Amino acid sequence: MKTSSKEPQAAALEWRVSMPGGASRALEPAPAAAGERRRCSSRMCICSRLGLGMGIGGFLERAWKMARNEPKKVMHCVKVGLALSLVSLFYYMRPLYDGVGGTAMWAVMTVVVVFEYTVGATLCKSVNRATGTFLAGALGMGVHWVASHAGDNLQPVILQASVFILATAATFSRFIPSVKARFDYGAMIFILTFSLVSVSGYRVDKLFEMAHHRLSTIAIGTSLCVITTMVVSPVWAGTELHNIINTNMDRLSDSLNACVAEYFKDGDDDDAKASDGGKNEAAATTKALHGYKCALNSKTTEESMANFARWEPAHGSFNFGHPWKEYLKVGASLRSCAYCIEALNASIASDAKAPDFLKKHFSKFCVRLSGSSSALLKELAISIAAMKKSSRTDLMVEEMRNAVRELQNALKSLSTQWMASTGEMASDTGEEKASPRVVTLTKIVPLVTVASLLIEIAARTETVAQTVTGLADKAEFKVESAEETKKFQSQKV
Amino acid sequence: MKTSSKEPQAAALEWRVSMPGGASRALEPAPAAAGERRRCSSRMCICSRLGLGMGIGGFLERAWKMARNEPKKVMHCVKVGLALSLVSLFYYMRPLYDGVGGTAMWAVMTVVVVFEYTVGATLCKSVNRATGTFLAGALGMGVHWVASHAGDNLQPVILQASVFILATAATFSRFIPSVKARFDYGAMIFILTFSLVSVSGYRVDKLFEMAHHRLSTIAIGTSLCVITTMVVSPVWAGTELHNIINTNMDRLSDSLNACVAEYFKDGDDDDAKASDGGKNEAAATTKALHGYKCALNSKTTEESMANFARWEPAHGSFNFGHPWKEYLKVGASLRSCAYCIEALNASIASDAKAPDFLKKHFSKFCVRLSGSSSALLKELAISIAAMKKSSRTDLMVEEMRNAVRELQNALKSLSTQWMASTGEMASDTGEEKASPRVVTLTKIVPLVTVASLLIEIAARTETVAQTVTGLADKAEFKVESAEETKKFQSQKV
Repeated sequence: MKTSSKEPQAAALEWRVSMPGGASRALEPAPAAAGERRRCSSRMCICSRLGLGMGIGGFLERAWKMARNEPKKVMHCVKVGLALSLVSLFYYMRPLYDGVGGTAMWAVMTVVVVFEYTVGATLCKSVNRATGTFLAGALGMGVHWVASHAGDNLQPVILQASVFILATAATFSRFIPSVKARFDYGAMIFILTFSLVSVSGYRVDKLFEMAHHRLSTIAIGTSLCVITTMVVSPVWAGTELHNIINTNMDRLSDSLNACVAEYFKDGDDDDAKASDGGKNEAAATTKALHGYKCALNSKTTEESMANFARWEPAHGSFNFGHPWKEYLKVGASLRSCAYCIEALNASIASDAKAPDFLKKHFSKFCVRLSGSSSALLKELAISIAAMKKSSRTDLMVEEMRNAVRELQNALKSLSTQWMASTGEMASDTGEEKASPRVVTLTKIVPLVTVASLLIEIAARTETVAQTVTGLADKAEFKVESAEETKKFQSQKV
Repeated sequence: MKTSSKEPQAAALEWRVSMPGGASRALEPAPAAAGERRRCSSRMCICSRLGLGMGIGGFLERAWKMARNEPKKVMHCVKVGLALSLVSLFYYMRPLYDGVGGTAMWAVMTVVVVFEYTVGATLCKSVNRATGTFLAGALGMGVHWVASHAGDNLQPVILQASVFILATAATFSRFIPSVKARFDYGAMIFILTFSLVSVSGYRVDKLFEMAHHRLSTIAIGTSLCVITTMVVSPVWAGTELHNIINTNMDRLSDSLNACVAEYFKDGDDDDAKASDGGKNEAAATTKALHGYKCALNSKTTEESMANFARWEPAHGSFNFGHPWKEYLKVGASLRSCAYCIEALNASIASDAKAPDFLKKHFSKFCVRLSGSSSALLKELAISIAAMKKSSRTDLMVEEMRNAVRELQNALKSLSTQWMASTGEMASDTGEEKASPRVVTLTKIVPLVTVASLLIEIAARTETVAQTVTGLADKAEFKVESAEETKKFQSQKV
């Protein structure tokens, strides 16, 4: 009893410390005199500084946590620093600096702008920058030549008109999805270079030299970027995409299992969870339950990764021309599965509960179906991760179909049982109403919904299996060797 | 009969014309001699050119279609051209050109890089560019001052180290979500400017002058962009976000209605659709059915629009500091509604069909519930569009709840009916089996699923209503006047 009276104070103290900018107010009376006010304002100043400091502290703490969790990102930052240090050597070395006519600045700029997180994105931007500059430079010089032969009065008109028309057209091309996906940056660089060349051509006489320097500095910058990004712990967009799909599939599988386990768990389990050991377990379950969410909004990431992956050379187990588009199909099928799991999650969380004996009766079939769907997803994830055609997939699909049939039969048998019990009831006139065996349709609604969603999820999992087979065919996954199959089976036993 | 024999030929001819690169092969024998081969290869050349031409033609056709459908995008392109033409005047006017020390190039570059589709994005980039340049310039000059006082040997070491450390840190900051959302571009410009200033400071003696020119050209470029984007038919990110949410809500409402109508439609309707007039209707229905899909993947767009909208000044009915984050909440609740409609769509498309008499019995209640949910969504969409608090929302929520209760009662009454019929069956021993009134549980599974998904959708629609109320409160929507309410009611009657 003693502690309970102290707890609020302790909590208030803690709040005073933890709440940025809102400290030491609660326990004091409102100040009235000027002196009080001054003291208060200076206190507020300290508080707001404390709050700011804490805000910055919190920000740094989160940043540090991120850095520890994702060392690859830290490595990327170091790589950018390295590439910039290397390119700035151009300034310190006289011969290099003079070699590019003092425009080493463009090389620095190229490095800053082109260096991206993944190799594919860096390559994409490099190629776009080089191509855009070259095309616009050539076109700009052509226009400049035409304009210079058109007389002094017409020259600025032609130049201005060409800038207007080409900038408008190139900007429009950036809205077209197919161009946007691959050449967005190139189109921007095209506009930039064309404007610079055609406009500055009016003043700078050494246009050819300028173009030459510009191209060579860009070549230096991009090649430096490409070498750094590919040599120093490279992050491949293709591998990232591969891993995203894999992780999502794994999480979906866990989520499905957790969902069904949560629904059919005994009431006793709840009591067990109240204990300390159970809390961690509960947190793990909640994490697994919401695992499907990662797949819901991954479309944009997947698409951009697939776009960048196309630019990458062969790396690891991926050849150039690896069918990255197939991953998008797998991703889409996973997403459609995730939508269904979302609905399943909702009906599990709903207030309407089915009677316990019915749940127990169905538990076996539902758990079996969800187990076989999630096992299939896991198997597909392993197959993608190992890039091997699994010999067990067909068998597992068949198993899943059987589980669907069994669940459907269970629903049928339930109706037969029910008929029997309601038949009895009809003849017994009323007394049976209190019997636990008699259920109304409203009570089985949640159960039927869960069952039919599970059947739908099984159908969608089959689609996932089909898309994975499509990927395996196009990417020419090798068939698993007999040894590997044996090894797997022995692990299973 | 005559026409039928000709049709395949006509179709083949059409195919020959329409198929890019695959023309005039089908009706001719395979060529064997060298002459034939040559002729064939020249024909193939023509064909591939034809194919290429058609490919380009198709591309241009799609582009033209896009231009006609989205005149705002065309206008944006014209605006970019206009801004570039204006900025290039700096080159032609001697006094302006000399005023910025011949570095008018930076102004052109700023326009190309900073000009974005929406006002918010342009402002965000402008502010980022100016701030990043200023901060990095100041810091770069500080570092340069320190380095120049450290002796000739230490100077390049200090400069290199500072570039490495600051580039690494700034790149890392770009990974932090809160920085990435608002200051991603600023961080890049910071790295760029700092590298340029601290590195070129080693050579360029007139550092102050360079910094001054750089800042003034950027100021010219950004202000030109901002003025052009805000004066010439501005596209506001806030308005776009407002419209996206509105459209999605509208489409969701239509989709829900179409879904339920499709499920409960009579078999006779199918025959009617086979006619020519029915085809258009079918296409419209399909479009409405899939309308919910627009909400599924709109998260990224909504978030970026909300980010840009925060930079925008007051425009239209939106003040500066309009609660754009609330729109994201509405968007999220709409998405969760869309996931459920997706599941509903799947169960409607499934093979398992409920018996007709049951469907008819339920049709009334389901259509009423879906109707009230979709009417509520429509009402909320109108309320957002008009930025007025609707006086009917609460009533409609209540109506929807009643519809939910009625559907639940219908499920209950079904079970009573069923009991009666199965009771009869149990006493009648077998003869009733053929009666259409006897249904097994498996047959009602799809119907129960649809009903329970509709109930879930109603619950989620209520969440949408709550988020819209939150938005209305924070954005201080005005209460609808009595006249407007009357007008609406008279329209309804």
